[in-house]
Amino acid sequence: MRLRHKPWAKDKLAEHASIVVHNPEEKRGKWHELFGNDKPIHIEVGTGKGRFITGMAKANPHVNYIGIELQDSVIVGALDLILEDVTPNIRLLNQNAEDLQKFFESNEIDRVYLNFSDPWPKNRHEKRRLTYKTYLKMYEDILVENGEIHFKTDNQGLFEFSLKSFSEYGLLLKFVSLDLHHSDFEGNIMTEYEEKFASKGNRIYRSEVQYRSSNLS
Amino acid sequence: MRLRHKPWAKDKLAEHASIVVHNPEEKRGKWHELFGNDKPIHIEVGTGKGRFITGMAKANPHVNYIGIELQDSVIVGALDLILEDVTPNIRLLNQNAEDLQKFFESNEIDRVYLNFSDPWPKNRHEKRRLTYKTYLKMYEDILVENGEIHFKTDNQGLFEFSLKSFSEYGLLLKFVSLDLHHSDFEGNIMTEYEEKFASKGNRIYRSEVQYRSSNLS
Repeated sequence: MRLRHKPWAKDKLAEHASIVVHNPEEKRGKWHELFGNDKPIHIEVGTGKGRFITGMAKANPHVNYIGIELQDSVIVGALDLILEDVTPNIRLLNQNAEDLQKFFESNEIDRVYLNFSDPWPKNRHEKRRLTYKTYLKMYEDILVENGEIHFKTDNQGLFEFSLKSFSEYGLLLKFVSLDLHHSDFEGNIMTEYEEKFASKGNRIYRSEVQYRSSNLS
Repeated sequence: MRLRHKPWAKDKLAEHASIVVHNPEEKRGKWHELFGNDKPIHIEVGTGKGRFITGMAKANPHVNYIGIELQDSVIVGALDLILEDVTPNIRLLNQNAEDLQKFFESNEIDRVYLNFSDPWPKNRHEKRRLTYKTYLKMYEDILVENGEIHFKTDNQGLFEFSLKSFSEYGLLLKFVSLDLHHSDFEGNIMTEYEEKFASKGNRIYRSEVQYRSSNLS
């Protein structure tokens, strides 16, 4: 993503602490308390400008959503979307995905969304891909038993890598579409990237994988 | 496949018993003896007119190949290819794939190839797809430990189904290409179908899966 520097972003994020949660380490194990209910919590790792997660939050009031994005100049777009149309079931974290275990306790999260993650196409960068095994372990550590990862991308190489990585980790492939926009899948909420890339004719790939109770690897 | 009835096919297959093995039940456990060596044995289930398996046999003299095809009017084409250019490391079976365990002993086969298998697109026919779990069990019964299935198709629905079926069975996805002909995969040998469908612009999907030693499902 081309980053436009927004020097005022940090201040704006700080002003809306009821939406952009500061010191998330202090909320570890207390997210249901923060949302004030026992509904499932779904997180999006790399939430960008927030179009997907705000759309999901509006469409699914029975679920709590947390969008995580490191770039303040980007996540401020997600904040704007929420301010335009506030829903009570969404929070943002301006944080690094590598610290997930610091923010969430074991069994606290029900689902992880990954959308159009950076493909890191060079082999020597594969450890940075959000579907690399170290990340799969991190998600497992915060997810409920049989928790799920829902993943979309238009990057063929990243999707191929991810299918192999999921399999190697022993995850169960519950759903796969190799051309989402020409499938009968219903209720798809597009990200900013997805609309842009799909309009260029790129295929969108999507998968749902689930952690198994038995150890497979 | 459009079947052109060839009334003379049965006779021709019978005439070449050194290539088209009759009564394969009697060879069960004795295939290495028949080939006269201890090289690995790879089978193709649904070998059609034999372009793939004859190409593989020529390219890989260190492997023994057995092509299995139910339709006599089709497999006779494979016989013709072999008669044109005989290699010692290939045999044909004019038999039904459902009887694999009658023809092969446990640990007798090293690899199963499935190429452009019938997609059986209707849900009620999914049990007939050659990547359905009952077939995966059958292959497991005749394969060596950590044996592999190599699978190609241009049918998106069949490929999606197969990836899920492999995962559900606990197979390890070692290789996947979502666009084989535009990848850096080397040494691909095309089937008749593959050339036809690829020339129409269809994507070719390919995967390699391996049975795991530990029980995963």
